[in-house]
Amino acid sequence: MASMVFTDPSSSATARLLPFTRFSNGVVSLRRIVGPLHVGLLNPTFPRTLSLSSPRSSRFITAAMATEQSAKVIDGKSVAKQIREEISAEVLKMKDAIGVVPGLAVILVGDRKDSATYVRNKKKACESVGINSFEVHLPEDASEQEVLKSISDFNDDPSIHGILVQLPLPPHMDEQNILNAVTIEKDVDGFHPLNIGRLAMRGREPLFVPCTPKGCIELLHRYGVDIKGKRAVVIGRSNIVGMPAALLLQREDATVSIVHSRTKNPEEITRQADIIISAVGQPNMVRGSWIKPGAVIIDVGINPVEDASSPRGYRLVGDVCYEEACKIAAAVTPVPGGVGPMTIAMLLSNTLSSAKRTHNFK
Amino acid sequence: MASMVFTDPSSSATARLLPFTRFSNGVVSLRRIVGPLHVGLLNPTFPRTLSLSSPRSSRFITAAMATEQSAKVIDGKSVAKQIREEISAEVLKMKDAIGVVPGLAVILVGDRKDSATYVRNKKKACESVGINSFEVHLPEDASEQEVLKSISDFNDDPSIHGILVQLPLPPHMDEQNILNAVTIEKDVDGFHPLNIGRLAMRGREPLFVPCTPKGCIELLHRYGVDIKGKRAVVIGRSNIVGMPAALLLQREDATVSIVHSRTKNPEEITRQADIIISAVGQPNMVRGSWIKPGAVIIDVGINPVEDASSPRGYRLVGDVCYEEACKIAAAVTPVPGGVGPMTIAMLLSNTLSSAKRTHNFK
Repeated sequence: MASMVFTDPSSSATARLLPFTRFSNGVVSLRRIVGPLHVGLLNPTFPRTLSLSSPRSSRFITAAMATEQSAKVIDGKSVAKQIREEISAEVLKMKDAIGVVPGLAVILVGDRKDSATYVRNKKKACESVGINSFEVHLPEDASEQEVLKSISDFNDDPSIHGILVQLPLPPHMDEQNILNAVTIEKDVDGFHPLNIGRLAMRGREPLFVPCTPKGCIELLHRYGVDIKGKRAVVIGRSNIVGMPAALLLQREDATVSIVHSRTKNPEEITRQADIIISAVGQPNMVRGSWIKPGAVIIDVGINPVEDASSPRGYRLVGDVCYEEACKIAAAVTPVPGGVGPMTIAMLLSNTLSSAKRTHNFK
Repeated sequence: MASMVFTDPSSSATARLLPFTRFSNGVVSLRRIVGPLHVGLLNPTFPRTLSLSSPRSSRFITAAMATEQSAKVIDGKSVAKQIREEISAEVLKMKDAIGVVPGLAVILVGDRKDSATYVRNKKKACESVGINSFEVHLPEDASEQEVLKSISDFNDDPSIHGILVQLPLPPHMDEQNILNAVTIEKDVDGFHPLNIGRLAMRGREPLFVPCTPKGCIELLHRYGVDIKGKRAVVIGRSNIVGMPAALLLQREDATVSIVHSRTKNPEEITRQADIIISAVGQPNMVRGSWIKPGAVIIDVGINPVEDASSPRGYRLVGDVCYEEACKIAAAVTPVPGGVGPMTIAMLLSNTLSSAKRTHNFK
């Protein structure tokens, strides 16, 4: 179970982290859990600025740690709540000004319980901010043509500003073909290659930024973490998190390195980073020894590990050994309650942006 | 003059390197030239394999240097010649088999002498391998509409498999709008965001890879340089060289870092690299101290520096201080005669691939 990943495998909304094959330093052996995690026990205050690891601030943080033994907790839950409130206000403003309400459509195929839960959560999130949500639920044995027809209808429907296809699709369907059918103007996932290309290119602007990496950067922004000129290491190079996160950091003038399963010395490279974004799906892989004192850590991994003391028999941990990170980093996201809540908030944000763009509403 | 860059600023075919604003370590002061360059004086043999900097091979190379004082020269001119011969043979084969000859169309607007030269060189290169070349030459005061009409005609013409718009365009034209008009199936430059997006995404394949970065990787391949698992540093993050070069190295499982004008310690990061691709347009910026013993260096920069002893009053040097690199690196491309000749070879290669794809000719 430890190698599973427990996130929404949708084309949108939360990271689909593929099991990380193996780091060459034998990281597979790191899967055991190191002590109870302290999520929620640390100071949940919301700093507006945060010093990064210049030699001076490192020393300060190290000194502070000697007494406090804890990094700042980057409270994604609280930031996401604030963003949802901001979106709510903007949705209301647009409705009052031009009578338009943003709309998000979700296409669900089959009867997977987890998929149904994810779709329900998205609908609830839409409702909570006043975005209209629409759903098409097709049976497991629906044809690819039927899915394409639904997409085409949503593409043409002016009350829909974002379209999601909940993944995974049944095996008889061509996922790439179906995702490509979503018009780029409503691709709130931001996974269309044209969007990714624009994200990679200087002087171009993507219509949408993929939700999870956008959430990572938003957390850095909201916590006042300076990105420009900093060393950033992204661990993992998936299309939906690692790669776009690296492109986003690069757009903000970080010096970015991407560490992946073929990297020979991930620990050494990661230890050079002022900012670490980890998105590999390996519980507690990033140990204290990987972390430069004073670094800021965004942990995208949500990994279930066996826990007999939990009623469910498991609990969720990140890619980063949280307890060790707390002693060394300047700031770290908890799991759960870090990046997770940001992803749906960014989906709502993308849907709102799409409606604003369509109606040229500033 | 030293800050100028002396390459074809076309949308295709050779690098357009923007002057590098400034490295934070004051690299601007490095613009002076360090001694006469030894281009052409080193051993031009063509190795089929080349050991990279594993501790063992590093030592070997270091030991060798103690007597030889020279890295292998990566002879782009010779590789490009070989590639053109291979293309010639394939063009002939396709013509014999299905009667199709690849065609490349170039659109030139205005009377810039340098642009005319670049276009002429491309036509000559096409002729030398049996590819048909077509040209439209519009006056400086042509309308954007006229350029778009030419592109549209070439898009529709089945005898054309690649379309280039020679840059720069006159200032009254919207470059992005014009480049976007080239159908992606004939975008032999590979700069379309959809192509770049596919290049960035795992599991997707671009229709075309931009010519200069493709030429860099081809040189590594032809010299048997192992890329997988190696540390690679790309210096420069332009849309046409640095960024796609980083994406290509990443696709080949290198661990890639991108160094740019906002990087605080470019020397320290570059010194970690087994493979360096430099594309910034700063003469002799990468000094010996930046280079790990045994590294392989691909130097994309082509920078004119004043030279009173030259009949033209200048000579061309790379981003890398060649003389110093020769003492430390395992292999290095000269300037000129390194990456430069590869770019047009890759343009021919992309045109041939396009024709093969169109006619499903293997």
